[in-house]
Amino acid sequence: MNVTVGQRTEHFRTVTFDTAKNSVRLIEQRLLPHEFKIVGTKNFRETAAAITDMIVRGAGAIGATAAYGLAQGALAFRGGDLEKFSSHIKTVYQTLADARPTAVDPVNAMNDVMREMARGETVAEKQSLALAAAEEFANEDARHCEEIGQHGAKLIRNGMKILTHCNAGWLAFVDIGTATAPMYAAQSQGKKFHVFCDETRPRSQGATLTAWELAQQKISHQIIADNAAGHLMQRGEIDMVIVGSDRTLGRTGEVANKIGTYTKAVLAARHKIPFYVAIPLSTIDWNLKRGFDIPIEERGESEVLGAWGIIDNSKLKTQNSKLAQRAYIRVANPTSGARNPGFDVTPAELITGIITPVGIFKPKELWHRRHELGFQK
Amino acid sequence: MNVTVGQRTEHFRTVTFDTAKNSVRLIEQRLLPHEFKIVGTKNFRETAAAITDMIVRGAGAIGATAAYGLAQGALAFRGGDLEKFSSHIKTVYQTLADARPTAVDPVNAMNDVMREMARGETVAEKQSLALAAAEEFANEDARHCEEIGQHGAKLIRNGMKILTHCNAGWLAFVDIGTATAPMYAAQSQGKKFHVFCDETRPRSQGATLTAWELAQQKISHQIIADNAAGHLMQRGEIDMVIVGSDRTLGRTGEVANKIGTYTKAVLAARHKIPFYVAIPLSTIDWNLKRGFDIPIEERGESEVLGAWGIIDNSKLKTQNSKLAQRAYIRVANPTSGARNPGFDVTPAELITGIITPVGIFKPKELWHRRHELGFQK
Repeated sequence: MNVTVGQRTEHFRTVTFDTAKNSVRLIEQRLLPHEFKIVGTKNFRETAAAITDMIVRGAGAIGATAAYGLAQGALAFRGGDLEKFSSHIKTVYQTLADARPTAVDPVNAMNDVMREMARGETVAEKQSLALAAAEEFANEDARHCEEIGQHGAKLIRNGMKILTHCNAGWLAFVDIGTATAPMYAAQSQGKKFHVFCDETRPRSQGATLTAWELAQQKISHQIIADNAAGHLMQRGEIDMVIVGSDRTLGRTGEVANKIGTYTKAVLAARHKIPFYVAIPLSTIDWNLKRGFDIPIEERGESEVLGAWGIIDNSKLKTQNSKLAQRAYIRVANPTSGARNPGFDVTPAELITGIITPVGIFKPKELWHRRHELGFQK
Repeated sequence: MNVTVGQRTEHFRTVTFDTAKNSVRLIEQRLLPHEFKIVGTKNFRETAAAITDMIVRGAGAIGATAAYGLAQGALAFRGGDLEKFSSHIKTVYQTLADARPTAVDPVNAMNDVMREMARGETVAEKQSLALAAAEEFANEDARHCEEIGQHGAKLIRNGMKILTHCNAGWLAFVDIGTATAPMYAAQSQGKKFHVFCDETRPRSQGATLTAWELAQQKISHQIIADNAAGHLMQRGEIDMVIVGSDRTLGRTGEVANKIGTYTKAVLAARHKIPFYVAIPLSTIDWNLKRGFDIPIEERGESEVLGAWGIIDNSKLKTQNSKLAQRAYIRVANPTSGARNPGFDVTPAELITGIITPVGIFKPKELWHRRHELGFQK
């Protein structure tokens, strides 16, 4: 999507590959929204570290990063010894797989690359197939998001007010995003609408990443406290909700997503406001039978007890760099603890539709139409 | 309630009066939860400033502060000239009334004091009646909160998990509080229970004030993001909700309270979890006919776009005072704005009961039983 740096507006993907330098190039997401910077990794170990350290985050984005990282590792190999190459590739694969052990996207993406590489007979052939496969993975990710946008844009009418939660935007994918894709597509069709971004405590991805994306794309938007959506719905100020999903159960239509999603779905149902979930096919789980069985990560207390931001304090005005002013503040009572579930599960009955690259489905239709949706069994 | 400072635990009220120094003594609430400090005002102008600057906040607490401030102003008058005294009192009254112009509590409290003062014939008599009336206002506020506690404690069973939102605790009144009153009463009856405090963005009163109160009172509690309550209810981890109210409509049973209250009521109804509102009689509005007509304050954007806290940053470790480390951080994208409604309105159908000093009522019963509840017409 477009980013304006100084006077210039340029198109950027979240993840790209620089063949001349054999480097994976990433938007340094930890600096957003306060600073926009592209960083390049020198080798596959740095690429793995970028995943671990959350320079890059989001399902599609870390998938593409791992795919490029595997190609980067392959291309760094010198010589033609197939056995040594194979053992080197095993190390590369394992290093990248270990970078974020609970995520499935890096492993799925790398398996695509491995399958392609297997078709090559020489090291050189395998190297070039690896890069082509990684590029194809990234392109497909962007294409799928674009297709989600085309289907979802039909739901957006002029003058609508749309609520979104967390960040399922282009920063979480290679480009375009999922929950944001219908908005970007509708904008390019000339539609005018307004987006409310839930702040999304405790990590504030709505206030930081989604708001930054929408500002770059010049889409009218405002940030609201997570507490405010119910009131706005009551006053008729929200016409539609679109969110992303970390895991969608193909058998039941239940959706696991960032904590707070369920609350918005309950409110939307009460106010008869359509509630849509935009997903790439890769997040559909065809095995699990009950949403209740989705493991809900309990995260550290410090996220709830404080916040990260830029210090706006005259005492520190002498420091030049915004980054030097980045700080964690403790907001809460120092002698209190916190509970911090990271995700929640929204039942199918609260979901109006699931926007996928191949069309919009009722949640209960997913299983029935599983072959269209890439179910492979 | 009790506060532990160093090794000592002492009983404190939020607002008291020091007759020797003719000074209103207040807990400096802006420093909580990071520092506990009592400040004394030198004269009625400083007392008004303490209300304006939010050293003291909360319905009952600012009512008592204004009542004491009026007595303080009266007591500072030298001489016996009744006409000059009366003109001085007008200035004092107006200064305190202007301190927080939209609040009704300071004016109601001062009208009590004015009525009592009118019974005196000399300046000295009026001065002593003013102080007695202010003391009685403060004592009655505390007594009413205690009665709310006695009625509400019956609802709390051993092992319960209770959710509360924002701060309707003793810091908002002279003592004990409203939403917290049943908890403190149940604790003194030896019951064991656990409280989840909604963080309550954007001003975080749950994470700061309520959590601090509960920690001082040694009540088991955890802070949660406002997004988390829905998930906890889904998993059966919340048995009851108790909140306060800024205004309750006597004719309809609708409740205006801190933004996010409505959301919790909708979630509680879906999960068949009892939802109680604890109120002093003074917050019942017997005139307004529709909750929709309650004016909802739109507050400044900066509350949503950032947060206040203590900087936890090695760069600043050399500064000794915690207060010097207090900072506002900008969390959100710098080029985005915010909407910030301060309150919302919960309809009667979502409220299980309203806990008052004279008993627990169904919201729709308020009007029918208005004479028990102090309706004066």
